[in-house]
Amino acid sequence: MRVTVWNENVHETTETEVAERYPDGIHGAVASAITEHHPEAAVRTATLADPEHGLTEDVLAGTDVLTWWGHKAHEEVDDAVVERVQRHVLSGMGLVVLHSGHLSKIFRALLGTTCNLNWRCEQDRELVWTVDPTHPIAEGVPHPIVIEQQEMYGEFFDIPAPDELIFISSFSGGEVFRSGCTFRRGHGRIFYFSPGDQAFPVYHHADVRKVIANGVGWAAPERARDLPVLRNRPAGWFA
Amino acid sequence: MRVTVWNENVHETTETEVAERYPDGIHGAVASAITEHHPEAAVRTATLADPEHGLTEDVLAGTDVLTWWGHKAHEEVDDAVVERVQRHVLSGMGLVVLHSGHLSKIFRALLGTTCNLNWRCEQDRELVWTVDPTHPIAEGVPHPIVIEQQEMYGEFFDIPAPDELIFISSFSGGEVFRSGCTFRRGHGRIFYFSPGDQAFPVYHHADVRKVIANGVGWAAPERARDLPVLRNRPAGWFA
Amino acid sequence: MRVTVWNENVHETTETEVAERYPDGIHGAVASAITEHHPEAAVRTATLADPEHGLTEDVLAGTDVLTWWGHKAHEEVDDAVVERVQRHVLSGMGLVVLHSGHLSKIFRALLGTTCNLNWRCEQDRELVWTVDPTHPIAEGVPHPIVIEQQEMYGEFFDIPAPDELIFISSFSGGEVFRSGCTFRRGHGRIFYFSPGDQAFPVYHHADVRKVIANGVGWAAPERARDLPVLRNRPAGWFA
Amino acid sequence: MRVTVWNENVHETTETEVAERYPDGIHGAVASAITEHHPEAAVRTATLADPEHGLTEDVLAGTDVLTWWGHKAHEEVDDAVVERVQRHVLSGMGLVVLHSGHLSKIFRALLGTTCNLNWRCEQDRELVWTVDPTHPIAEGVPHPIVIEQQEMYGEFFDIPAPDELIFISSFSGGEVFRSGCTFRRGHGRIFYFSPGDQAFPVYHHADVRKVIANGVGWAAPERARDLPVLRNRPAGWFA
Repeated sequence: MRVTVWNENVHETTETEVAERYPDGIHGAVASAITEHHPEAAVRTATLADPEHGLTEDVLAGTDVLTWWGHKAHEEVDDAVVERVQRHVLSGMGLVVLHSGHLSKIFRALLGTTCNLNWRCEQDRELVWTVDPTHPIAEGVPHPIVIEQQEMYGEFFDIPAPDELIFISSFSGGEVFRSGCTFRRGHGRIFYFSPGDQAFPVYHHADVRKVIANGVGWAAPERARDLPVLRNRPAGWFA
Repeated sequence: MRVTVWNENVHETTETEVAERYPDGIHGAVASAITEHHPEAAVRTATLADPEHGLTEDVLAGTDVLTWWGHKAHEEVDDAVVERVQRHVLSGMGLVVLHSGHLSKIFRALLGTTCNLNWRCEQDRELVWTVDPTHPIAEGVPHPIVIEQQEMYGEFFDIPAPDELIFISSFSGGEVFRSGCTFRRGHGRIFYFSPGDQAFPVYHHADVRKVIANGVGWAAPERARDLPVLRNRPAGWFA
Repeated sequence: MRVTVWNENVHETTETEVAERYPDGIHGAVASAITEHHPEAAVRTATLADPEHGLTEDVLAGTDVLTWWGHKAHEEVDDAVVERVQRHVLSGMGLVVLHSGHLSKIFRALLGTTCNLNWRCEQDRELVWTVDPTHPIAEGVPHPIVIEQQEMYGEFFDIPAPDELIFISSFSGGEVFRSGCTFRRGHGRIFYFSPGDQAFPVYHHADVRKVIANGVGWAAPERARDLPVLRNRPAGWFA
Repeated sequence: MRVTVWNENVHETTETEVAERYPDGIHGAVASAITEHHPEAAVRTATLADPEHGLTEDVLAGTDVLTWWGHKAHEEVDDAVVERVQRHVLSGMGLVVLHSGHLSKIFRALLGTTCNLNWRCEQDRELVWTVDPTHPIAEGVPHPIVIEQQEMYGEFFDIPAPDELIFISSFSGGEVFRSGCTFRRGHGRIFYFSPGDQAFPVYHHADVRKVIANGVGWAAPERARDLPVLRNRPAGWFA
């Protein structure tokens, strides 16, 4: 399995607190979570500052699952790169969208909605409950996962009805959120998982790391990539 | 619209506190909620103690939507009546299952699962959040509905993935619950709504009453009843 | 109900055969189907050649349901108009996408996939079977609808799993197609219906006209438009 | 993987033609298909005539996936055995229901509907089209699968909306059918696949055999069995 971990890497390079929390960047923390649970995987990282954001045609063609973290710089992501990523997802590349990635261009392009939600950043405790207990993404985590400090993401979350709803979170403030959702688009599998923030050490949380690794494993394609093009059936009838 | 409100009516007739809370029975409270919002509807009630539990073939044939409340006496409901109700739901009669009705024979027969859940009765506050904001069942209620005192119903709720998920609740204890779900079975529409309990005055809560009335309106069939029988197509081909 | 019927109107203005088949344009035929079944509706038309394709902010703000037909000129539709339509759909305007509109910019933007399919234009007979018999969109049409001459649209149809699958078609050549599908996106309802073509008089077919009118009625919003913007919850907790 | 192949085994023991078509019984043909593609699996068979139909508590506790074929003798299956099978499915045992098993007690108990359909036995050709091309159950089969002689099963098929729709069939007569569907119930996975009949040699068809084997592989549980019982959460709150 070949995984590319993408991160805009802006908070870490401009805010001391975040840099101390994630000395290898959020991408470093996410990559280590995947490596921890999939030691056989080839995991690389890419960031906004890289040429073509590190997501060239070659990189994507060699990627089974792409994970995405962005927050401050969604609009700086090149539209051509977004289209390229979308084409690869539709052709079979898995995509795991994390936390504030819900407003990324690529997530909104694939889902078609605003992907807005309610939020508040005041150190809520988040509980992540499993509502699909045999789903491979929920394997090996407690019911609930307890995250002591976290930003609140609440409903209404403006997404299409997910193909599978795996996790629902509650927050100290009483809010709820569909925090783990899957979507199939074209030949690709998409997993959205909301826990995780630059302001809290959530990507060091063992259960969160496990879920991300589970999601990557689930999203990996089982077949060769099939780039979407218009394919006409031959004119012959079956009749 | 012709509505039949069914209630086992055991708590009310055996426990003083419940009788004081619901002097007309839970069925009386539910019926008044429906009448309040659908003044044109013909609403009658039926209880476990009635002959055939008040659910004869004639009553069901004359019912557009049946609401169901039971708790202590699920096993006392006659299997023949359950089969009759199931047949009418599959033929187009709407069904609104309330609160502890999740373990009723009719709900389990229609869904096929255990319909179990986690629970705790310690005066939680329940918040009911809308996750399908344009659904007619969510019309006219705040986001969230606040229920100051309520029993806790929590995940995992062992139901099939609902056709539509309308409400998710949180509780003071931090639990979450898929508290408003729809299911289509045969020609019938089913709405499950969890808020409501014999130990708390939830059926006097204005927003809860509105949701129940909305659910009844949504579940009402738009066409003539079509009793399910095996219908073979004539042998002629279209080819 | 205020309906706007959009048509690229290219075939009709450049091909004699099509002009004879649809003397009022495909938009004229579609509009008359809606008026026939919803005599109370205010139905207007708009085409590609109109300024801003006839879809100004004012027109869309005054539209409850938009129907869309396009084929040859998808790429000529202005991206700004597509974004405007998408914003109105997400805020509650209904959208009915017809036939070759499956490759329109607006349909692909809302669904996120290629929306490709297999096709063959050789005068198949299409049979449209109902698989959701109580859905309001299937009301009043035979099982199956028989369309004697029609272009073939076949699977694989690259769309997200629909929220509701209402019709499945078969063709003389043996192909099948998910020909009637609904999707909810944001506050808007979307209905895709494939029967209909410039090369065949399908929009004069009584059952096809009935389904289109049913779809328009279903897609109409039940509440005031709610333009999507990022809305943060106030900071106060419920706890 | 431990698989139990169940067959009522009535046609084969009472009709010469069927016995010649399936000399090892339909169960023998199905078992050989599974063994062919899963040589490591432990596959056994059980039939209606066996004590407790061969489905004792011990057998089920030692079964990862059960396949079911029945037709003439649905009503002769003991209700206690049906309840036992249902309990094991809800606790995680996979279930693959084949062809006329759509009217079996176990399928109807798990789905809650009549599971009726239209049918005609006149040697149609069936084409099985894939509409979920990356699903593991569709792996390795052509699009479409061509079955030269087959009974017709047509819509309306009275089932709940499937969790996943994988195959849609067309028939010479022009009918369509949702021929490959998945359902999750409790902790168990259910796959229904309609091709296959006692009157035609469909279980010797290579592609049909492949799909059945794929379905068995998909339905196998990934975790230890978890028998469903009412589990109350401890009274302690998370707050």
